[in-house]
Amino acid sequence: MKFIIQKDYLVQSVQDVMKAVSSRTTIPILTGIKIVATTEGVTLTGSDSDISIESFIPAEEAGSEIVEIRQPGSIVLQARFFSEIVKKLPKDTVEIEVQNHLSTVIRSGKAEFNLNGLDAEEYPHLPQVEEENMFRIPTDLLKNMIRQTVFAVSVSETRPILTGVNWKVESGQLHCTATDSHRLAMRKASIEMENQDTYNVVIPGKSLNELSKILDDTNELVDIVITENQVLFKTKHLLFFSRLLDGNYPDTSRLIPNESKTDVVITTKDLLQSIDRASLLGEGKNNVVKLSTLPEGVIEVSSNTPEIGKVIEEIQSQSIEGEELKISFSAKYMIDALKALDSTEIKVSFTGAMRPFLLRSIDNDSVLHLILPVRTF
Amino acid sequence: MKFIIQKDYLVQSVQDVMKAVSSRTTIPILTGIKIVATTEGVTLTGSDSDISIESFIPAEEAGSEIVEIRQPGSIVLQARFFSEIVKKLPKDTVEIEVQNHLSTVIRSGKAEFNLNGLDAEEYPHLPQVEEENMFRIPTDLLKNMIRQTVFAVSVSETRPILTGVNWKVESGQLHCTATDSHRLAMRKASIEMENQDTYNVVIPGKSLNELSKILDDTNELVDIVITENQVLFKTKHLLFFSRLLDGNYPDTSRLIPNESKTDVVITTKDLLQSIDRASLLGEGKNNVVKLSTLPEGVIEVSSNTPEIGKVIEEIQSQSIEGEELKISFSAKYMIDALKALDSTEIKVSFTGAMRPFLLRSIDNDSVLHLILPVRTF
Repeated sequence: MKFIIQKDYLVQSVQDVMKAVSSRTTIPILTGIKIVATTEGVTLTGSDSDISIESFIPAEEAGSEIVEIRQPGSIVLQARFFSEIVKKLPKDTVEIEVQNHLSTVIRSGKAEFNLNGLDAEEYPHLPQVEEENMFRIPTDLLKNMIRQTVFAVSVSETRPILTGVNWKVESGQLHCTATDSHRLAMRKASIEMENQDTYNVVIPGKSLNELSKILDDTNELVDIVITENQVLFKTKHLLFFSRLLDGNYPDTSRLIPNESKTDVVITTKDLLQSIDRASLLGEGKNNVVKLSTLPEGVIEVSSNTPEIGKVIEEIQSQSIEGEELKISFSAKYMIDALKALDSTEIKVSFTGAMRPFLLRSIDNDSVLHLILPVRTF
Repeated sequence: MKFIIQKDYLVQSVQDVMKAVSSRTTIPILTGIKIVATTEGVTLTGSDSDISIESFIPAEEAGSEIVEIRQPGSIVLQARFFSEIVKKLPKDTVEIEVQNHLSTVIRSGKAEFNLNGLDAEEYPHLPQVEEENMFRIPTDLLKNMIRQTVFAVSVSETRPILTGVNWKVESGQLHCTATDSHRLAMRKASIEMENQDTYNVVIPGKSLNELSKILDDTNELVDIVITENQVLFKTKHLLFFSRLLDGNYPDTSRLIPNESKTDVVITTKDLLQSIDRASLLGEGKNNVVKLSTLPEGVIEVSSNTPEIGKVIEEIQSQSIEGEELKISFSAKYMIDALKALDSTEIKVSFTGAMRPFLLRSIDNDSVLHLILPVRTF
């Protein structure tokens, strides 16, 4: 294998596949990055066996040469060293050449590195995914859907299925739902698909976080292919594979109350900042704060940690309809939900102090957050 | 105590004194910030008993009111909570009022915090420092002198005196020296002083790092007062006290070779980047790299970690004078020294492969770095 490549492309590609490489792996070769050079270009692969990322650098793009392939071939190089080396190379181009015994020379300017490689034949094969049935979402929408749900997955392994986000595809709509059993986040959107396939899978939260990091903020379409145990996200030069979680995701639809007793419409920022202040003196590790309705559309937010102090604040809402209410909840859950609601004004619907309450945008019903209160009153 | 203050001034002042507050202290009241309001303004104090910082906010500055003092007085408030609270207050002004039983109200807009305070009378007194004998340095020069030496202090407590920087004042010159016994950094500068006092003290590296962080990059003069066991740095509205380290600092002047056998003049950036690359494959925890002189002013930098790989690079120097040389040293020490030398070109003076070598600016002799080689050849 021998090729000369534009450094910037190599650095970006290495950085992308590094997201899948873990230093803690039971399969030693997975601490490496697989490099395959063909006449079409160079493909890099990183994997921790849960997530696999493949990045392709074409030999030529828009008429200009990015890689000059001298000799096709392949090698696996230690990811940690290789990624640091390419970042620090002195010139704009890099020559990479595998010599005898897998020893690999990386040349740039007058700097010459020599890394001991591993045989690419021994690198595990990526999952085989049939690309017949797929659907498509714009990249920026996909990133938003991830951001607005993934924060609510469980961080505890008690119920492993809850560490993932439930993706349901039905009638041309994608529903993403995450819950840690104390709060729930749901986001739905229309998708482009050619058939009427339905899916119901659970994607690990970690995978979605990593995917979100390597996707650019463009509106180009991402192809998504779901199989029995894998999901593949495909952009122009990137393949992102994640395994799916085994098991049945709980039916969350029955958790969502259909009616409400108190409805508050309020400016998101006012509520967010007030809860944020109250959280400073919120009780316990969940920073419990209290919310009470007062006459004339005033909301009172308060918290109290007896040994430290207390805080009380009034905010003016747009409107309060229904019963009077006093309720306590985790400031953290509330802040997470308010940050995920990309809406200037929101509606909060309560069904009494002991029942879960809902947060929604007033403009549309594509996002929904549910929070379980804490019993203190 | 009751006053109304511009939030920005309070936030800045709290942030400054927080640098001295430690959550791990054996004196509980030191987890607090002392606030004293007089008709002149408000003084905040933070301390971990090694470092004490006092920040003064004048009632009036340049004709505009910063603090409106309603009732002089004092209180100690939990630093962690108080600092978070003031940052998150909704309005540009804050009212702080001590009510009965040390309970303190912090009001801004419609937010009202209530913190349990402590009696300011119980807060330890700051060291008494006679301000008769002092010298002065511009703030930016002081920050440079700290930056160029403090990195070389010892991080091990085996010889506590080496965790500090030796400050010597003699004949209107300040010499700052730090060494961890493997390398040494020295910086000298002329200072403004009215008398011919001499000093020889050791200031904890940690204190200098914290001082550097709270000083702005101005050329305003800092007053420095040294006493038997304290040093005080004084700017317009800030007092920074640090205890001094007990014990005698070793005489480092005899470590510095007077003659050299090989002198290399080289562009700092070329050498720095090359060493940085070689350090990636440097051996052992100190990332040992090798440097060899070649004919025609060429320097070869190399390293080798057998199980991973090796790197070799040639760089063109301005000149090499004297004997041929092969020497090994810690890449980390070399990188630290090269970064601290604010000079485009430097001179490196070697006295053989087993002797310490010197790095100096080619323009001036105010900075000097010494590094002990590692025996590998």
